[in-house]
This record gives sequence, C-alpha cells and structure tokens, in this order.
Amino acid sequence: MTMTTTDEKIESHTLTILVDNEPGVLARVIGLFSGRGYNIESLTVSEISESRELSRITIVTPGTPSFIAKISAQVERLIPVHRVYDLSLREDTIFRELALLKVAGKGENRVEALRLAEAFQADVVDASLEHFVFELRGRSKKITQFIELMKPLGLVNIVRTGVIAVSRGSERM
Amino acid sequence: MTMTTTDEKIESHTLTILVDNEPGVLARVIGLFSGRGYNIESLTVSEISESRELSRITIVTPGTPSFIAKISAQVERLIPVHRVYDLSLREDTIFRELALLKVAGKGENRVEALRLAEAFQADVVDASLEHFVFELRGRSKKITQFIELMKPLGLVNIVRTGVIAVSRGSERM
Repeated sequence: MTMTTTDEKIESHTLTILVDNEPGVLARVIGLFSGRGYNIESLTVSEISESRELSRITIVTPGTPSFIAKISAQVERLIPVHRVYDLSLREDTIFRELALLKVAGKGENRVEALRLAEAFQADVVDASLEHFVFELRGRSKKITQFIELMKPLGLVNIVRTGVIAVSRGSERM
Repeated sequence: MTMTTTDEKIESHTLTILVDNEPGVLARVIGLFSGRGYNIESLTVSEISESRELSRITIVTPGTPSFIAKISAQVERLIPVHRVYDLSLREDTIFRELALLKVAGKGENRVEALRLAEAFQADVVDASLEHFVFELRGRSKKITQFIELMKPLGLVNIVRTGVIAVSRGSERM
C-alpha cells in the first residue's frame, strides 16, 4: 500500500457539476466553497439544452488531489446535485475559454497589437482608428499570455468566460 | 412626462458586475438574486488580469427594465461591488459565448452534422469514426440554434460558457 498524500501538489482542478436547474442551487454550491475557504478561480454555469431540467456548473479551484476529492464529495451530497466530475484527472480533457479584449493605441503599438493578434489567431470583432476589440479562444494559459502581451500596448478592458471542459472520445462527460 | 412602466417587456438583460476579488463575494451576489427569486440564465466569473484585486461577474437574467434597475441598485449596494452595468441597454454591445458539443453518429447523420458544423463555422476539436467534438462561438441564439439542429443527429453532451459582453468603441466597459 502506497501513501502519496504527503507529497501532494496544489494544482488547479476543473470540476464539472450537474445540478437540477432550480433557483438557489448555484448559491448553495458556491456557498459550500466559500464557507470552507476554497478559492474559485473561474466559474461558468449554463442550462443544458438537451434537458431544460439540468444545469452544468464548471468550477476551477486550486487544491491538492485529496482536498479536491473531499470538496467534490461534499458538493455531491447536496440534494440538487447529480454528479461531480474532476476533468483535470483525465489526460484527454479538452479545455477551452473565450475572451474579449479591448486595446486602444496608436502608431507602432497599434501595429504590434494587430501583429500579435494574428499570431494568436485572435479575431478583430470591432475596430476604429484608435482601438481594437479582439476575440480570442483557447486554453486559459494562451489567453493569459495574450493579455500579458497586450498590457504595454494599451489594454483597456478584458472579459473572460472562464473555463469549460469536455472529455475526448464519445463518452457522455 | 411619459410613463412606460405599464407596458414594460420581460427580456434577458446582461449585467456586468465589477467586484473585489475576495472569497464570498460571488456567494453574496448570487444569494441576492436567488433570495429575491430572480432567475440566472447564465453566469460567468473571472479575474481581471490587469488588476488581480478585481473580478468581473457577467449575469444574464430576465426581467422588465424597472426590475433590472432595482436588482442592479441592490447589487451595487453590496460592499465588495464597485459597479454594475446593464450592457443590454446599449445598442452597440458585443455579446459572445463559446460551446463544446459532442455528437456521436454514423452514416448520413454524421455527414449532416459535419455539413452543419461547416455552415455554422464550428471547428472540429476532436473526432473518431463515431463522434465529433465541435467548438462553436458567437451569440447565444446562434449556439442554441446549432444545438437544436444537432439533437436529432446524436447529440451526446453540451458545455456552454455563458455570455460575456463588451461595448463597442474605446470606452472602458
């Protein structure tokens, strides 16, 4: 028997939580995290259109594997919660995020912003002579990197969706 | 003086809420909605990377303009909340959402799924002989429409980010 808890690493985990689509569920799930001092790095929630009765919550939270297992079990015990999956435990998970960035600048900064946007395959969704709105999607790390590069070039505003995730293959998760 | 409150329409509004990035804020904001029976259609939250001290919450909620104004004022009175904007009140707002869809099928269904994905400019991010994972972005209406079209073709799984929004022009919102 091997005990590995002592050298566990704190890493971000992406939890997918299937819940009944009813008022107050989100407040209860989030309350459970904040009540125990768990930090939420990103959160998305939307109805699952194949069934109007279910919603899917995706939460990114940092912790050791055993802490994540504990909070997952606690969330799963809530009545309106059906299932909790930790998609970070699978090597084949697809992670995606979308961001809108507004960058205002002139001259060389403006040229450089557009050049980097092309390199990152960001789309221009709005533009004037003095600003761009870029739309970028990909893994969170890529989006964070793009944001860092835009900072010295006149970054005005950022909106990020937070992470969604789905397994590879034909499985239902 | 014109009174228009009597013929107000119930419509989805997209609220952008700037808050201090501290534990429990999200629970308080959401608690305010659920405590008053407001429905949340979608919610995203993420750190604003230009300032680690702020997070942005985007909530889509249905209501008449006067109800939305009331809940916005209540949210703005919470201590960790800085500003609430109703981006639906502006005609020039850019709305975006991202979705991952898993579709499993064979034969003509599979061909039709790929054909529709091309028409909607969805990307194939994973595939086998029996399934596709499509990545689609755009306005929520477009994503909902694509989901409806995939349902009879073997839709296995949907994950949506929920809506993010940004104003056109160089303004900071």
